[in-house]
Amino acid sequence: MLYPNNIKKDYKKITSFSNRGMDLEQIIEMANQYYIDNDIAYIYKKPTPIGVTKVDYNIKGKRILDGYYKCPSTLDFNGLYKGYYIEFDAKVTLNKTSFPISNVHEHQINHIYNINKHGGIVFLIIMMNNKYFLLMGSTFLDFIKNNSRKSIPYEFIKNNAYEIDLSLNGLDYLKIIDKLIGGHI
Amino acid sequence: MLYPNNIKKDYKKITSFSNRGMDLEQIIEMANQYYIDNDIAYIYKKPTPIGVTKVDYNIKGKRILDGYYKCPSTLDFNGLYKGYYIEFDAKVTLNKTSFPISNVHEHQINHIYNINKHGGIVFLIIMMNNKYFLLMGSTFLDFIKNNSRKSIPYEFIKNNAYEIDLSLNGLDYLKIIDKLIGGHI
Repeated sequence: MLYPNNIKKDYKKITSFSNRGMDLEQIIEMANQYYIDNDIAYIYKKPTPIGVTKVDYNIKGKRILDGYYKCPSTLDFNGLYKGYYIEFDAKVTLNKTSFPISNVHEHQINHIYNINKHGGIVFLIIMMNNKYFLLMGSTFLDFIKNNSRKSIPYEFIKNNAYEIDLSLNGLDYLKIIDKLIGGHI
Repeated sequence: MLYPNNIKKDYKKITSFSNRGMDLEQIIEMANQYYIDNDIAYIYKKPTPIGVTKVDYNIKGKRILDGYYKCPSTLDFNGLYKGYYIEFDAKVTLNKTSFPISNVHEHQINHIYNINKHGGIVFLIIMMNNKYFLLMGSTFLDFIKNNSRKSIPYEFIKNNAYEIDLSLNGLDYLKIIDKLIGGHI
């Protein structure tokens, strides 16, 4: 099915909100759905990690009575594109001049390092100043290694990340990955 | 660190429980830890998907007051080996003559299909009759496609899956994957 109902709805939203900054996760999920529907890639959102402290067993099964959202140690999105391992996270900042590194948890930094080391494609999609950027994990790690700053200047992002265009199919980030795989950027 | 404390403990358990059928997940996690510690691979367990129906916002943050365990739509373990995308699930059956296909949820079957289609390495690790088998996703899908049976006979598993040996480093399943990648089996 090329355009399921929920996607159609999203198209409408894109038109009306295009200049106001849409929900980043929503336009990524739109792209992911488009990739799946068109057999381009298989990328999905991982479950949010939850810690469970109290459960109740009743006739309907196990019920969680007390739990909390754990600090994520991996990145939100994961999957496959042309046989390549893909993993990334979506980050939004309202800060106009720099991206605070604290947006990426320490465990996530470690995770980025490991994926990068073992040959996966790992990156961050950063929404900032109403633009969308794809920042490769290796560039992000290099910045942390070589700087003592607690945030990445917008200038650095503009010069070292790749701007992603918003299309009718959502945020088509694989267009950037395609160029990277092909060695065109 | 080659042998952290928790791994040492596991070694002891392996010795004492070796003939009684250990916890499958435990010996997989042991192997995963061994792979990470020795820079062989980076494979980790995904969070269990949970549905949240009631939350409480208090001074300490968001707390889950009502939730339930969702039926998993992906497989439990995920990661990278030599740049290859790896995903698999661990299944145990006490049934001696066949492996009930109902152990694999419908969404998981769909997931296996998608990973396989997009070039990932996907499989099941099945514990049965005190042996451990690696059944490739493609073999599993073929069986379902070509049979109307609700379970896979043990004979089929013995002939079409690969037996994994239990080692001091846990269940070293990548030894099988290595042979598959190298085209030796």
